[in-house]
Amino acid sequence: MMIRFSLLVLVLAISTVRFRMAKAELSAHSGDRYSLDSVREALVKQEDTIVYGLIERTKFPSNSHTYAENYIEIPGFCGSLVEFVVKNTEALQAQAGRYQSPEENPFFPENLPPPIVPSYPFTQILHPGAASLNINKSIWKMYFQELLPLLVTSGDDGNYAQTAASDLSLLQAISRRIHYGKFVAEVKFRESPQDYEPLIRAQDREGLMKLLTFESVEEMVRKRVEKKAMVFGQEVSLNRVDDTNVKHKFDPSVASRLYQKWVIPLTKEVQVQYLLRRLD
Amino acid sequence: MMIRFSLLVLVLAISTVRFRMAKAELSAHSGDRYSLDSVREALVKQEDTIVYGLIERTKFPSNSHTYAENYIEIPGFCGSLVEFVVKNTEALQAQAGRYQSPEENPFFPENLPPPIVPSYPFTQILHPGAASLNINKSIWKMYFQELLPLLVTSGDDGNYAQTAASDLSLLQAISRRIHYGKFVAEVKFRESPQDYEPLIRAQDREGLMKLLTFESVEEMVRKRVEKKAMVFGQEVSLNRVDDTNVKHKFDPSVASRLYQKWVIPLTKEVQVQYLLRRLD
Repeated sequence: MMIRFSLLVLVLAISTVRFRMAKAELSAHSGDRYSLDSVREALVKQEDTIVYGLIERTKFPSNSHTYAENYIEIPGFCGSLVEFVVKNTEALQAQAGRYQSPEENPFFPENLPPPIVPSYPFTQILHPGAASLNINKSIWKMYFQELLPLLVTSGDDGNYAQTAASDLSLLQAISRRIHYGKFVAEVKFRESPQDYEPLIRAQDREGLMKLLTFESVEEMVRKRVEKKAMVFGQEVSLNRVDDTNVKHKFDPSVASRLYQKWVIPLTKEVQVQYLLRRLD
Repeated sequence: MMIRFSLLVLVLAISTVRFRMAKAELSAHSGDRYSLDSVREALVKQEDTIVYGLIERTKFPSNSHTYAENYIEIPGFCGSLVEFVVKNTEALQAQAGRYQSPEENPFFPENLPPPIVPSYPFTQILHPGAASLNINKSIWKMYFQELLPLLVTSGDDGNYAQTAASDLSLLQAISRRIHYGKFVAEVKFRESPQDYEPLIRAQDREGLMKLLTFESVEEMVRKRVEKKAMVFGQEVSLNRVDDTNVKHKFDPSVASRLYQKWVIPLTKEVQVQYLLRRLD
């Protein structure tokens, strides 16, 4: 009761800019969805989804027809089958309200249809500039040019639709994780605005990147992801007596490389881009 | 060379009905996709997908708006959000060629659009009657009325589109597993036609069910699925020194109950229905 009253006094006492922030803090606190702890927890959960997605994609071979420019012929559409599937699934999910959530970012944001569901009061803690921050073009390029060749064996089993659907799930999981950098940055900023504000005012990209970088934490994340890939990707047998000779569905180091080379750097890129606009 | 020649003689010597079967056997053998071993292996892999799907669905609470009849308003559509998402995603995946594969069965087979991809030469080993064998209506009912209430906690986080997408993936994985019974039945039939033919001719449902039931195997499958749910659903930590106090993302017994109460009986139902038409 006392705490609520103090917060109320605080809210009434501060400026309108601060008011918006305090309101966000209150609502974040009430749902506790974006505390430092819950943001960390969300990142850890998202690792699981990414690892499951990697394993699921390895069930199919490369299936190159999925990615060939001239494989499908459909009037009014130019692109590969995976583009066709992703664009149209995103349009459908936009109608179902997916992109109303500030945690979701479409790969093809152009011409998405409006939602057919009532709007939901998602907790809004981000600076309004966050809405236009979308690095999915880089993620798309990385996924098809760098990650897939590491992940899958060459071959063709004809399951192109399923392959594209599995690409979409994994792309969405990776994109969500990387764009979650917006929330990470906001929470870090609120923890110590005095460290961030001077760098933001100076638009000091490198300074911000340095402030956001904790090598030991990154190392721990990479190791944990690799361990998850080993644990979740193992072939489970009822008869095994020890852990030697456990087979794995894919090379766990691919998961750790994905994090080291792309997920962690791109999340920091999102954080920096977010922070550079944080005081606008 | 000798073997090929004998097969050729065999093919030429038998009736047209047998011819179709021998051709199928040849093509199955050449791809080795539907040997007894590879069918078993496919079933084991599909368990993993189902367990990942169960875990992914538990990331969201019940989100009951996803299933309410009157939540969305869209001209020309009557139903829940999840029906809207499943119907339209299936239509899209049908265009991408998903249902050309004899392993895939849509939940809403009515009015699916034709594929926009060239047809792929999927190995055809099933009796033509298989194409119309689809028990997705029962799976749909089981999923929403029985499984979901066991699996998720009540609550509403607004992520209805993501919830529906996660329902769809899990439904598809369960449906694929259950309808894989067609291949299981075909392979079993080919192993010992002398055991099946009299029962099929007598249209002896119970006799077939008895012949298909191996309680010890079912017990092993349930145990393995529960173990997978424990292994894949554990919260992986870098610091853990032993396996005590491992937290799990969901109750592993739900996975084993899913198999015991629904996946195994419904797979057998598919097998029996398939076999009853096998000599038509």
